[in-house]
Amino acid sequence: MPQTKILLDESDIPSHWYNVVADMPNKPAPPLGPDGKPVGPEALAAIFPMALIEQEVSGERWIPIPEAVREAYRIYRPSPLFRAHRLEAALGTPARIYYKYEGVSPAGSHKVNTSIAQAWYNAQAGVKRLATETGAGQWGSSLALAGQMFGIEVRVYMVKVSYDQKPFRRSMMQTWGAEVLASPTNLTESGRKILAQDPNSPGSLGIAISEAVEEAASRPDTNYALGSVLNHVCHHQTIIGLEAKKQFEKVGEYPDMVFACCGGGSNFAGAAFPFLADKAAGKQVRLVAAEPTSCPTLTRGHYAYDFGDAVGLTPMMLMYTLGHDFVPPGIHAGGLRYHGDSPLVSQLYKEGLIEAVAVPQLATFEAGVTFARAEGIIPAPESCHAIRACLDEALRCKQTGEPKVLFFNLSGHGHFDMASYDAYFAGKLEDYAYPEHEIEAALHRLPKVAA
Amino acid sequence: MPQTKILLDESDIPSHWYNVVADMPNKPAPPLGPDGKPVGPEALAAIFPMALIEQEVSGERWIPIPEAVREAYRIYRPSPLFRAHRLEAALGTPARIYYKYEGVSPAGSHKVNTSIAQAWYNAQAGVKRLATETGAGQWGSSLALAGQMFGIEVRVYMVKVSYDQKPFRRSMMQTWGAEVLASPTNLTESGRKILAQDPNSPGSLGIAISEAVEEAASRPDTNYALGSVLNHVCHHQTIIGLEAKKQFEKVGEYPDMVFACCGGGSNFAGAAFPFLADKAAGKQVRLVAAEPTSCPTLTRGHYAYDFGDAVGLTPMMLMYTLGHDFVPPGIHAGGLRYHGDSPLVSQLYKEGLIEAVAVPQLATFEAGVTFARAEGIIPAPESCHAIRACLDEALRCKQTGEPKVLFFNLSGHGHFDMASYDAYFAGKLEDYAYPEHEIEAALHRLPKVAA
Repeated sequence: MPQTKILLDESDIPSHWYNVVADMPNKPAPPLGPDGKPVGPEALAAIFPMALIEQEVSGERWIPIPEAVREAYRIYRPSPLFRAHRLEAALGTPARIYYKYEGVSPAGSHKVNTSIAQAWYNAQAGVKRLATETGAGQWGSSLALAGQMFGIEVRVYMVKVSYDQKPFRRSMMQTWGAEVLASPTNLTESGRKILAQDPNSPGSLGIAISEAVEEAASRPDTNYALGSVLNHVCHHQTIIGLEAKKQFEKVGEYPDMVFACCGGGSNFAGAAFPFLADKAAGKQVRLVAAEPTSCPTLTRGHYAYDFGDAVGLTPMMLMYTLGHDFVPPGIHAGGLRYHGDSPLVSQLYKEGLIEAVAVPQLATFEAGVTFARAEGIIPAPESCHAIRACLDEALRCKQTGEPKVLFFNLSGHGHFDMASYDAYFAGKLEDYAYPEHEIEAALHRLPKVAA
Repeated sequence: MPQTKILLDESDIPSHWYNVVADMPNKPAPPLGPDGKPVGPEALAAIFPMALIEQEVSGERWIPIPEAVREAYRIYRPSPLFRAHRLEAALGTPARIYYKYEGVSPAGSHKVNTSIAQAWYNAQAGVKRLATETGAGQWGSSLALAGQMFGIEVRVYMVKVSYDQKPFRRSMMQTWGAEVLASPTNLTESGRKILAQDPNSPGSLGIAISEAVEEAASRPDTNYALGSVLNHVCHHQTIIGLEAKKQFEKVGEYPDMVFACCGGGSNFAGAAFPFLADKAAGKQVRLVAAEPTSCPTLTRGHYAYDFGDAVGLTPMMLMYTLGHDFVPPGIHAGGLRYHGDSPLVSQLYKEGLIEAVAVPQLATFEAGVTFARAEGIIPAPESCHAIRACLDEALRCKQTGEPKVLFFNLSGHGHFDMASYDAYFAGKLEDYAYPEHEIEAALHRLPKVAA
C-alpha cells in the first residue's frame, strides 16, 4: 500500500532557521528613512526586541532556534508531507506531487511559525504586550495563540469591515485571550484622524498598521509584530522547507520544482529558500512564486524603493511594488492582497534565481476544488494559487510524459473561507486583470529616492 | 524536551476493528419490528449492503478492515495522541493527561472513520447513490467526503434551519461534490406531508431521517447511511481506541480512566470499547461517557425498547432513552442532542461496565476555553463535554495528589462552531436542567412492547 504521509519525529524539528542572505550573490540593499539615508537597527528598537532586529540584519547562514521555541512548535510540528497519490490519479499525470500541510497549526496556517518565535523573543525581552493589525484574521489569530503561550497580552487592530464580516476569526482570537478592536478606533491619533474625516470608515490594512505601530511606539510596555515581508519573518518560515527536505530525503526524492503562493513573501520564502541553498550549491531545482493576476507584484510591478504600508509611515524598502497606494481588487485570497513583496524575495526574483507566475482567481478556486475532491483537505484561497501553478505543471507533464517531482506548500486550510467557496459555486466570483495603464502610472507614484 | 505528540506510522493502522459484543457478559437484545417480533437482517437489505448488515449482527471479536479502507484512512490516520503538558501545567495537576485528536480528518471529526467504511462497502455492493440526513453537518460532510473518494453520489437532507443558519458546513459538502437539500423537501412523501401542514417548517432531524430512509427504500440504486447508534458504526469507530492503545504502549503508559462525549454513542464506543476488552481480561480501567445535563440519556433515561427516530419509522431498540419524541433544548453541542443511545453502550452501562456523567453547557465551554488556551486546538462543543469530565478528574487529582493517567478523545475541532464560542463570551449561553417530572412522563410515552 503506497505511503501517503511522510512524518518526522519531534526530535527532527530543525535546530536552526535558514538565512538566505548568506547564499545571495549580492547583499540586500538597506531600508531607507524619510531622508533617503539607510535606517540602522537602532531606529527599530522602539517597536521590536533587539534579538529580532539582529536577525533582520544578519548575514549568518544559520540562526539557532531557541529550545523554548522548538518546544512550542511541538504542538503541531513537524508538519506532514503528503504524497498526493489521489490527485495524481485524478489528473492522470506521470508527475509525482508532494505537498507540505501547514494547516495543522491550531490557527490553521504557516503564520504560527513566526508568531511563536516573535512572541517568545518579546517575552524574553520583558515585553508584556504586543500590538498588531489583521485583515481577514490569519495573522491576528496566530499572534493571539502565540501570545497566550508565552503570557503576553495581545491587542489586534482588525480592519472594521473584516471585524463585521468575519466574526469567526475574531472569536478565535478571543478564545485565545486576545483583545480585538475594530479599526479605526478612537484610541490612537491615526484612528481619530480617520474617524474625524469619516465616522463610518470601513478601515483598511494601512490604517490598522498605523494604529498598531503608533501604539507600540508610544507605549514602553508594548511592541509591534508583523506577519510577513521582513527578513526575520522569512527566516522563521524556513522551517517549512527545512523539514520538507528531511522528508524528501526519507523517501529518496528531491523536487524538480517548488511552488508556493506569494503575498508579502514569507510563505514562499519559507517553502523555497532552503531549496535555494541547494541551488546555490549547483542543484537543479526551480522555485516558483504564485501570485494573483489582480495583484501581480512580482510579474508586473516595478523594482524600486517604496513604503511597506499604504500611508508611508514605514522605512522605504527596495522591492517589487505596484505602488504603496495601490488598492488590490477584493479577491478572496486576502493574504495575497499586498502592493509590495519581501525585499529578499524581490531581489532573488530580480536576479533570476526564482520564478513567478500570476494566476486568475477563478482558476485558483477550480484548482482548489479539484484538490479537495481528490485529497480531502479544503485549501485556503491563498494556497489555491500554489495548487493552480502546480496543477498546470502536472498537466504539462501529462502531455510530455515527464515524471517530474512537484512540491507545493499548502499554507493553510479554508475552514474560515467557506463563504468564498460558496461564492465560487454560485458563479459570483470574477477574474480581475491588472490594467496595462496602471504599470506606467504606478511608476510615477513611487517615492523619489536619490540613486 | 518532553514529547508532545505520540505518532504512529501508516503501517500501524489497525488491520481489524474490534467488536465489543464478543466480550459482553450478556448478548445484546435484538431490535424489534412494529409487531414486537425480532427484526432479521433481511429486513435491512433494502437500505444497507449485506456486508454492513453482517457486521451489525456479528459476534466475532475482530472484523477485518478491507485494504482499500485502510488505504483511504491514510489521508489522516493514524491520528496523533497528544500528551497535554501545557494543560497539566495550567491546572497544576499531578495527573498525566493524554488526548487523541480526531479533528485531523478533512471533515474535522471522528465521523469519517465510519463514513469511509460505509461508502466503500456500498461501492463494493454496486450502490451508486447514498442518501443521508444531517443536522449541524458533521455527518453529512463526512459522508460527502467519503462518497467522493469512492465515486458514490451523495444526497444530504439537511435540517432546514441548519441549512439556513450554517451555510459553511453546506459549502463544505458541496466542495466534496454532494447534493445538499433543505429538509423538508417536496421530493419525498414524508417531506410533502410536513410541508402540507406547514409550508414554512424549519425541519427536524426526525423529518430528515424519514426523507433519507424513504428515498433509499424506494430507489433501487440508492442506499442509506447512518452516522452513529448502530453496532457496525460503533465497530468502525474502535479504530480510535485501538490506535490509542498502540500509542500508550509506545510510551509505556496505560490510562486509569478514559473519557469520551456520548450522543448516539459511536464516539464513546470508538474510544472506550478497545479498553473494555482489557477490562474484561482483568485490567483496571474506568470508562466514562460524558453527556449534556440537558439531554441526560444514560444518567436519567429509561432502559427500554424505543424507536431510533423521532417519528417511529425505525425498528425499536433496547437502549437508554428519554422518549423518542423528546426534543432536547437547543444546546450548541448539536451532536449530543439525541433522545436515545447506542444499544451496545446502553447495555454496558446498564450492566455496570462503563460509567456516565452529565455536565452542564456553561461548564463545558469553560473547559473548552481552558483547553484551547493551554493546548492551542479549539475543540468542538461536543468534545468539550469529554474535556470537562476529564478536567474535573484532573482537579480531583490535584487535591488528592494522585498521578492518574487520564485519557480523553478530542472528537473534533470547533472551526465551524465559533458562533457558539461567540455566544459563550457574550454571556448568552445558559444551562438547561432536565425536569424531574419528565422522567416519569417519558416512561408513559414509550412504545408498548410485550415483555
